Amino acid sequence: MKIAIIIFDKFTDIDLFLMWDLLNRVRVADWEVKILGENANHVSATGISVQTHGRIEEANDADAVLFVSGQGTRAKMIDKEWLSRFQLNPEKQFIGSICSGSLLLAALGLLENKTATTYPTTKAALENFGVEVIEKPFVAHDKIATAGGCLAQQYLIGWVIENLAGKDWRELVLKSIQPVGEGLFFADAENLTRLYAPKIQTAEV
Amino acid sequence: MKIAIIIFDKFTDIDLFLMWDLLNRVRVADWEVKILGENANHVSATGISVQTHGRIEEANDADAVLFVSGQGTRAKMIDKEWLSRFQLNPEKQFIGSICSGSLLLAALGLLENKTATTYPTTKAALENFGVEVIEKPFVAHDKIATAGGCLAQQYLIGWVIENLAGKDWRELVLKSIQPVGEGLFFADAENLTRLYAPKIQTAEV
Repeated sequence: MKIAIIIFDKFTDIDLFLMWDLLNRVRVADWEVKILGENANHVSATGISVQTHGRIEEANDADAVLFVSGQGTRAKMIDKEWLSRFQLNPEKQFIGSICSGSLLLAALGLLENKTATTYPTTKAALENFGVEVIEKPFVAHDKIATAGGCLAQQYLIGWVIENLAGKDWRELVLKSIQPVGEGLFFADAENLTRLYAPKIQTAEV
Repeated sequence: MKIAIIIFDKFTDIDLFLMWDLLNRVRVADWEVKILGENANHVSATGISVQTHGRIEEANDADAVLFVSGQGTRAKMIDKEWLSRFQLNPEKQFIGSICSGSLLLAALGLLENKTATTYPTTKAALENFGVEVIEKPFVAHDKIATAGGCLAQQYLIGWVIENLAGKDWRELVLKSIQPVGEGLFFADAENLTRLYAPKIQTAEV
């Protein structure tokens, strides 16, 4: 399974790193998560420089494609050259966004005639694309989903993991980040070690 | 206010980047957050390379010092040279940890005769330091606090922000990452813009 996370300059840190960390807890064979961008490095809204693992075209044959959020979405949603590099297929690929990443799904024509959610400060911008924006943390239509509010990544990534790795992995991964005594317990220790085992290597061709 | 986040190789991504992102939402004068390490770069458990903003000695005059977690804590908790570089003062500084970062507080002698919390998989290791470990998301004793479970960073960082910037900033910052419709609402949009305004510059000396 190939999962692509799309970043760009001025992304919101937590909206990349929460999904990145959660997705990297899954231990199934050939599970590959890559951060993709148009450059070798992108710099977050707070100045964190992150190396990408490949270019954005790699998203076109991924099993899931996730768009992060941040101030940078406003430049990218009108960057026709950048948008034209995506040839996504919502019949075959799971496609999702967190917060203002929904603006990029809309700009790619993926939210036509669909309801969606986004961050409060980008509701109006998403409505400008003709999208009906609803006040929910997570809105899925078949293989396209939007999530709003950073911690709603739990719904979005849970959806991706359940579809690509199964319900057990969804439950264990989401449990593993809960506060102790509030969803995660000391008695879970043994089960958690599955998440931090060495990665299962991708088979050599 | 100076806030130091201590990292090392093999840190857990979300345990750095959630606190980093939250702390960077505060807009008060002279609010400075730095990621400190013994090297110019440290690599997370999943392979993310992060540039540090300074060396660990800078923590010794910070207003708050926060230790992240990850596999790397097991090497650092027995690294006498590394530990000796900290001269922290729990009478003056707020000092905290997330998950296995508690092992570093214990190794520095900061948890003597105190209860604490940690991640389920490091409960036994923390008990080996003679610490009574309790199943709570957040345990504070005066200016020393431990949090367990990644999302318990909300308690830890809320505590830091409330003490250094006030209760209003705590509430607004924590609200800003909640799922839409579950703690964060479209009607909050105007108030949220305070968090994403340009930083208030530190006064030139």
